[in-house]
Amino acid sequence: MRKFLLSSCFGVLAAFAAGGANAQDWSMPTGDYANTRYSKLNQITAANVGKLQVAWTFSTGVLRGHEGAPLVIGNVMYVHGPFPNPVYALDLDHDAKILWKYVPKQDPNVIPVMCCDTVNRGLAYADGKIFLHQADTTLVALDAKTGNVVWTAKNGDPSKGETGTSAPHVIKDKVIIGISGGEFGVRGSVTAYNVKDGKKVWRGYSMGPDSDTLIDPQKTTHLGKPVGADSGTNTWEGDQWKIGGGTTWGWYSYDPDLNLVYYGSGNPSTWNPKQRPGDNRWSMTIWARDADTGAVKWVYQMTPHDEWDFDGVNEMILSDQTINGQPRKLLTHFDRNGFGYTLDRTNGELLVAEKFDPKVNWATKVDMDKNSKTYGRPLVVSQYSTDQNGEDKNTKGVCPAALGTKDEQPAAYSPDTQLFYVPTNHVCMDYEPFKVSYTAGQPYVGATLSMYPPPGETNMGNFIAWDGKTGKIVWSDPEQFSVWSGALATAGGVVFYGTLEGYLKAVDAKSGKELFKFKTPSGIIGNVMTYQHGGKQYVAVLSGVGGWAGIGLAAGLTNPTDGLGAVGGYAALSNYTALGGQLTVFALPQ
Amino acid sequence: MRKFLLSSCFGVLAAFAAGGANAQDWSMPTGDYANTRYSKLNQITAANVGKLQVAWTFSTGVLRGHEGAPLVIGNVMYVHGPFPNPVYALDLDHDAKILWKYVPKQDPNVIPVMCCDTVNRGLAYADGKIFLHQADTTLVALDAKTGNVVWTAKNGDPSKGETGTSAPHVIKDKVIIGISGGEFGVRGSVTAYNVKDGKKVWRGYSMGPDSDTLIDPQKTTHLGKPVGADSGTNTWEGDQWKIGGGTTWGWYSYDPDLNLVYYGSGNPSTWNPKQRPGDNRWSMTIWARDADTGAVKWVYQMTPHDEWDFDGVNEMILSDQTINGQPRKLLTHFDRNGFGYTLDRTNGELLVAEKFDPKVNWATKVDMDKNSKTYGRPLVVSQYSTDQNGEDKNTKGVCPAALGTKDEQPAAYSPDTQLFYVPTNHVCMDYEPFKVSYTAGQPYVGATLSMYPPPGETNMGNFIAWDGKTGKIVWSDPEQFSVWSGALATAGGVVFYGTLEGYLKAVDAKSGKELFKFKTPSGIIGNVMTYQHGGKQYVAVLSGVGGWAGIGLAAGLTNPTDGLGAVGGYAALSNYTALGGQLTVFALPQ
Repeated sequence: MRKFLLSSCFGVLAAFAAGGANAQDWSMPTGDYANTRYSKLNQITAANVGKLQVAWTFSTGVLRGHEGAPLVIGNVMYVHGPFPNPVYALDLDHDAKILWKYVPKQDPNVIPVMCCDTVNRGLAYADGKIFLHQADTTLVALDAKTGNVVWTAKNGDPSKGETGTSAPHVIKDKVIIGISGGEFGVRGSVTAYNVKDGKKVWRGYSMGPDSDTLIDPQKTTHLGKPVGADSGTNTWEGDQWKIGGGTTWGWYSYDPDLNLVYYGSGNPSTWNPKQRPGDNRWSMTIWARDADTGAVKWVYQMTPHDEWDFDGVNEMILSDQTINGQPRKLLTHFDRNGFGYTLDRTNGELLVAEKFDPKVNWATKVDMDKNSKTYGRPLVVSQYSTDQNGEDKNTKGVCPAALGTKDEQPAAYSPDTQLFYVPTNHVCMDYEPFKVSYTAGQPYVGATLSMYPPPGETNMGNFIAWDGKTGKIVWSDPEQFSVWSGALATAGGVVFYGTLEGYLKAVDAKSGKELFKFKTPSGIIGNVMTYQHGGKQYVAVLSGVGGWAGIGLAAGLTNPTDGLGAVGGYAALSNYTALGGQLTVFALPQ
Repeated sequence: MRKFLLSSCFGVLAAFAAGGANAQDWSMPTGDYANTRYSKLNQITAANVGKLQVAWTFSTGVLRGHEGAPLVIGNVMYVHGPFPNPVYALDLDHDAKILWKYVPKQDPNVIPVMCCDTVNRGLAYADGKIFLHQADTTLVALDAKTGNVVWTAKNGDPSKGETGTSAPHVIKDKVIIGISGGEFGVRGSVTAYNVKDGKKVWRGYSMGPDSDTLIDPQKTTHLGKPVGADSGTNTWEGDQWKIGGGTTWGWYSYDPDLNLVYYGSGNPSTWNPKQRPGDNRWSMTIWARDADTGAVKWVYQMTPHDEWDFDGVNEMILSDQTINGQPRKLLTHFDRNGFGYTLDRTNGELLVAEKFDPKVNWATKVDMDKNSKTYGRPLVVSQYSTDQNGEDKNTKGVCPAALGTKDEQPAAYSPDTQLFYVPTNHVCMDYEPFKVSYTAGQPYVGATLSMYPPPGETNMGNFIAWDGKTGKIVWSDPEQFSVWSGALATAGGVVFYGTLEGYLKAVDAKSGKELFKFKTPSGIIGNVMTYQHGGKQYVAVLSGVGGWAGIGLAAGLTNPTDGLGAVGGYAALSNYTALGGQLTVFALPQ
């Protein structure tokens, strides 16, 4: 027991002080504040990873899509699952015995308003508490030792289509969460709650008056210039910003020196661009907010006036690299729209924006000419403009598809190789917008679509290594299906990811050469994590096919345009795997 | 493809000719006709089993209790699951790719009439067909290559509480199935269907007129004597035999030389003995029937007038051993009532009847004196007679509990050691009968009970080795919970079983010494099997806690007397495991 308390203390210190600096733990869902998902553990190397074995396994007791990953704090592992969002504390000193289990009571009526499976992306930890963001948007703090509820806070209203799928992120003394529901006309926001008692500290919306967005017309910049007054309303017709989308369900990162929180806001509602003329700010935007106040330092809108559901929520990975001989504090982001962006995270300066899949065709490029009127904007190809083609017209062959060249599946970054490891989708689509009217709590989608591999190809995914300084693919490993699992990079020179068929794979960080694979019970949409316990390094991943790509299997859909179009190209998944919900933990043999 | 066809042919031959004689396959749910669950495979030995690794895993896509085991025929594995009873054909040559999947459409109203979880005990194979006994009592023959339905037969009526949980057994050109529903007043029967077209060939009831039971008053013997006329009705009051129980959901064995099928019939309905005076023949009986006609060669009633739900369905294991210098064709049976019986299977002569758990207290012994009036009957201890104590009286401390010293979890037999390996329950109970009236399709239980470990002990199970010739325990490995997994014995000198916490364990066949254990995703109530593929021996087991012992977890029950009393002592299971449904396949490293 003494050991437990001691380890817990270390965990607290780690989470508060250095953002996961205690390499033995995996104390935050992103691995560290910088969102690198890089571990300093190096027992498992490129030379020995081929000998990896399954050490133990655990069923979560729930089926459907298992996104996220467990946490490890000292000698306790915390495992979560999709709706109804069970949380287990497992005693690593005693064969993963269940120390406690928490299953919230939630109204199952939340399930139909979860757009893309009943996923939950994980837990956060701080101050002796485990934080769970329930499907019904309740943020609950559990005593890490007992599982008893310490406090709860209600972040949204499922009857309006507001749901919770994202992991909470503890930043300093606050637990910060976003909201899901972009397909229900939810207006996105990010909210900070006090770790101690759950009191709301600040909330910043994605659109609306400056008082709502916490944008300062003069101090907040966009591509180096002040955004000016009413930037969150003046690119919307009338009151449309009130149902404007820009939800916030991705992974958040934090720079302690700058005290800035980084995240992306999602697609504007509806998917029918004709219904919402204008740039629809600040949907599709990279945000830098002050952690203490929520005040916005800078924004960068990647896809003004989205016409393809290129939801901008994907994670921002922070790294310090040298570009053109100059050390830079960088932020790298792989957007659904197929561009990999590198910015200066101190001020939002756009440094690199290149396609991370050569098939991306909806824009020729991002205009990098600072003197151009379209500076920083994608140059849209008319053929693929669903707005120009218009309502009830089927725009064919847009690449990427709505689920993007990458969706929420987080990339990793290794400071050793200075490469990003990116799980990608290699998928195109036909997209047909239609008029839709808004009713609170009802789907507000406004487009039908079908998704399929690029013409003439069969692989629907690639796992790539990306140089963020130059915006170039270094190597690319093709996969039959989208890689919907989060990557893990380690100091052992190995990178891990999972596949929708259910394989955990390990590849050489430098070459991408496959070094190990193992067929887990179900398709993997979870994020690979690693920890050390009893002097031994472990690698763990949740299996449980589902999420948007796997929604056909997860919800038993068969129509190609069901599941917001994901069923089509992914129907063949049922030849490889079935629903599950299991943790598989790997280690080297004795 | 050619290889597949060839292997399939071998499978057919094996199943028809020698009852699993092709040691590379696992072509019947019991391993072989003799029900030994012994494999001649010997790559995995006592010396190397400690190095066993997980080779691959597969999720069935269903939660709750996973009894049974997959079949392997050539290069295809067939996996089944609990309600809704999915069947998967997995291509062992291609990383267990799903060749086909079959999920019957069944009325979910069958679930409430499944007494002890929604289990299914497995598939049978013959003539290029896979046979599935659905929860709704439909017997379906699937084309083993395509999964297409070849024929179906309806064996019972769920609206009367008749359900299907047991595995089909192919014996020669017939597929033979039993029926579940002893807690709903179902009258048990065994039915043989033609493998080719599903036509009913014969049906033998457990009670009723001789024309129903297929008993010949003169030729059918009980302990060496003809049973006489109307033996299936004359120990019942009035028409009570019509709702008399004696269901037939265990594992069946077959002696090709004698052409006899062996199985047990279950408890008489209701559990309240006061309501059904008499011996209640032929509940609680070992049966030997002619495979072609169903004609009964002999019977032996183990527990006349059951007062404790000592359901007699457990398997009969056939072995040829020498007793007192005389080679005998033996049948060994570990009954719920706590006695291990050895009989001469040619004629039903009772040779041995000894307690296989020293705590068994409801009877002092089975009377072995052939000249005694009570020959072959258990000598009941008045203190534990729930009939003598009467209705609405709580009879305390009966050992074993209703789920018996062993339930359906099948034992194994090794001809190498001439020992039986028996998964046991080490559980006692309080039992209170009450008056109940019969309504078709409604529970007809008539007793409440609670179950717990024997006073002063904490382990609720043992895995034992048993000498069937002498009726003695050779060694006994204690387990915290009932061992609800079927055992596997191998020519490698290793015996395997699973635990309710989820461990697969391997022990030395001679000494019982633990040689290997691995924590699978969920509690194990499945039966361990082995097969060889590509020259390599594999061991596989289904995880998925549930069944009667795990019904608390499986059905979310918390009241100690819920789940027919199983919740009590098994409540602590939730500290170790959660619901699951996974296959884990093990092999030695390369």
